[in-house]
Amino acid sequence: MQIAKLSDSISLQRSVEQANVDHVTTVREVIDQVRINGDKALFNYTEKWDGAKLTCLRVTEEEVEEAFASFDSQLIKDLEEAAANIRAFHLQQVRQNIDFPLAKSSYIQYKITPLDAVGLYVPGGTAAYPSSVLMNAIPAIVAGVKRVVIVSPPSKEGKLPASVLVAAKIAGITEIYKVGGAQAIAALAYGTESIRAVDKITGPGNSYVALAKREVFGKVAIDMIAGPSEIAIIADETAFADEVASDLLAQAEHDRFASAVLVTTSVRLAKEVADEVETQLKQLPREEIARGSIENFGRIYIAESLGQAVEAVNELAPEHLEIMTEQPEVISEQIKHAGAIFVGRFSSEPVGDYFAGTNHVLPTNSTARFSSGLCVDDFIKKTSVVYYSEEMWQEQYPKIARLARLEQLEGHARSVESRSWKKGDSN
Amino acid sequence: MQIAKLSDSISLQRSVEQANVDHVTTVREVIDQVRINGDKALFNYTEKWDGAKLTCLRVTEEEVEEAFASFDSQLIKDLEEAAANIRAFHLQQVRQNIDFPLAKSSYIQYKITPLDAVGLYVPGGTAAYPSSVLMNAIPAIVAGVKRVVIVSPPSKEGKLPASVLVAAKIAGITEIYKVGGAQAIAALAYGTESIRAVDKITGPGNSYVALAKREVFGKVAIDMIAGPSEIAIIADETAFADEVASDLLAQAEHDRFASAVLVTTSVRLAKEVADEVETQLKQLPREEIARGSIENFGRIYIAESLGQAVEAVNELAPEHLEIMTEQPEVISEQIKHAGAIFVGRFSSEPVGDYFAGTNHVLPTNSTARFSSGLCVDDFIKKTSVVYYSEEMWQEQYPKIARLARLEQLEGHARSVESRSWKKGDSN
Repeated sequence: MQIAKLSDSISLQRSVEQANVDHVTTVREVIDQVRINGDKALFNYTEKWDGAKLTCLRVTEEEVEEAFASFDSQLIKDLEEAAANIRAFHLQQVRQNIDFPLAKSSYIQYKITPLDAVGLYVPGGTAAYPSSVLMNAIPAIVAGVKRVVIVSPPSKEGKLPASVLVAAKIAGITEIYKVGGAQAIAALAYGTESIRAVDKITGPGNSYVALAKREVFGKVAIDMIAGPSEIAIIADETAFADEVASDLLAQAEHDRFASAVLVTTSVRLAKEVADEVETQLKQLPREEIARGSIENFGRIYIAESLGQAVEAVNELAPEHLEIMTEQPEVISEQIKHAGAIFVGRFSSEPVGDYFAGTNHVLPTNSTARFSSGLCVDDFIKKTSVVYYSEEMWQEQYPKIARLARLEQLEGHARSVESRSWKKGDSN
Repeated sequence: MQIAKLSDSISLQRSVEQANVDHVTTVREVIDQVRINGDKALFNYTEKWDGAKLTCLRVTEEEVEEAFASFDSQLIKDLEEAAANIRAFHLQQVRQNIDFPLAKSSYIQYKITPLDAVGLYVPGGTAAYPSSVLMNAIPAIVAGVKRVVIVSPPSKEGKLPASVLVAAKIAGITEIYKVGGAQAIAALAYGTESIRAVDKITGPGNSYVALAKREVFGKVAIDMIAGPSEIAIIADETAFADEVASDLLAQAEHDRFASAVLVTTSVRLAKEVADEVETQLKQLPREEIARGSIENFGRIYIAESLGQAVEAVNELAPEHLEIMTEQPEVISEQIKHAGAIFVGRFSSEPVGDYFAGTNHVLPTNSTARFSSGLCVDDFIKKTSVVYYSEEMWQEQYPKIARLARLEQLEGHARSVESRSWKKGDSN
């Protein structure tokens, strides 16, 4: 793993492939077909791309119960505890309406309303993570969304992974469809005979899914389109090299574009971590992926001071930040830009990935400068309500009319003035 | 104005022009030039497109003071009062950090942090609305954004409109640049010698500005790209036709794609409003624009009941909704989807456009189903902070490791387990 002196800043810039033009054409065609032919198109694409010949898209209650009954009971308990933790923390994010009284019995209200319906995409194969089901579904349910739907591509045998069905049941989702790819996104956005349209689509997916989400954006809301995952670690001479190395590798094993960066004030630690990474890499099942990530996007930077390290990390705005220093809370308070911060050596990133209760869907590629992880706010919207009484209107309308005329919007001025044409009416 | 029976739903679908491919090419070239040549490119484009030969992009303090001194003092007082109202209401939206204690001295914190820097685009000419300056700037300032910058295209004489400078001063903005179009967006996103880059760009603009915002999205955050403005009005037989008509026309005068829809249970009112619209149209300075809007996108629907009207409006999710019925608050409580609601006949839309304190930047084109008006939330982000004590880690790590292995992420499991390799250390 390369060691360098920390100069002004660190960059996460990774040359991730740009959208392939052929893919765009394919995705648009799929969306059109689903809009025109509905379920028929979904069945066709599922047979063509997933190799599954289905007669019904919806997962039955029996399928869910079967998955649950055959699943490891200890893992069910673990998932239930994780779900309870996620629910408890996200409940803290729930917001109340604001009632703001104005003069003369007038008021403004700020109404919080959940979305009506949300669709959650769950990738197939080894990327079908039950933790992602919990992380996407629970904030929506806590927000009060009445209808939360899962779509996921089936295996050749027409099945969804048991772990996904179990996580869905634990989260409280009963509407699950065996359909993936761009066709699933099109169905969620426009609706078919089997699948009613939703208002927002969240969840990770391959490049076709990401492209399809971009295409339907505007018709429905989408979550951020996540880039490869990343971690930055700030450590001083009190940190342990084996722990730091294992945390860098936990990030690197995700995919070859993942980025793992250590910023340390200790030259000794830097060298020990570089050695440890090599040692641990050899024992890692996903060695090849992790090695690719570490070689291309893994870096150890030597900082002159913790202050300089903090500055560079604030510039970087990493998705995940671990702090393993003598006083990690002091450093944490100085961090302005990061998706999630893990404080001290007993809070390694997987604590948040799976269990503590915070969300693991986080802003990548330095976008933590201006965006946040998935949360209850993503599933509600706010409506302002204005009530002016007659007395309030009487007092204020000349000002409003003057401001409208300043902008040469005479119709606006007349709208507030038109009330003066009558007297004594009220409601 | 056309009158129709309300059947299942109303649609706002307007065939607004799609992005012109030539425009896309131009905008990309402009962005590249600004990235390569910085200020030089800004000066060149400003001369080419705005006809202004500048030597300095930044508005001086003297220019602002001059604008302020020569401005109508009553209008200054009106703008100051509007700004105070907007500030007061947006202050209600400010959120506090969440401290969530866990077992064994562990905790989660949810940290609210303002963005570092925000750029506000203000269009030139007659679309340079001082009210938009207040509506975009104040939420950012209330959120705690330290650096709020305005960019706006200058006149041929190299000046910005006095009303914009006055509104900027009232909002508390001192960093203002004479540059507009795609070049201004590029400068805000990538920075030049004169203009440091920002983290988010908000504010309306023409199609070049909108395209440029799409292009730089990801490098910086952007606000929604607003469609044409729209109003829906629910009225019963207690409403006054002249008032309803004037409110429909206040919307229609914005532009020919604006949409104004009345849903009423009263056939009499429907007819009277149609007549009134025609009468008032003839007296409106912007008659031509308003007539185009009313003819193409103005509709009066007769509903069988207020319940049916509410249902149709919830389906429509209009940007603005006025309620002029006998019990407007009862109706208001039934509305789930709208950008802003105006309750009763003394609360016509301009009350909120200019003065009450709510924001007038609102979701258009039915996107109020899943999005909200501009607010303090748009200028902050949330970071989760996780602290697990040694005791908490000791108790929980086996569960976390099991969940990681369920997802075949061995490196994640080892990351939490690696802490067990030592004993008695802590921080």
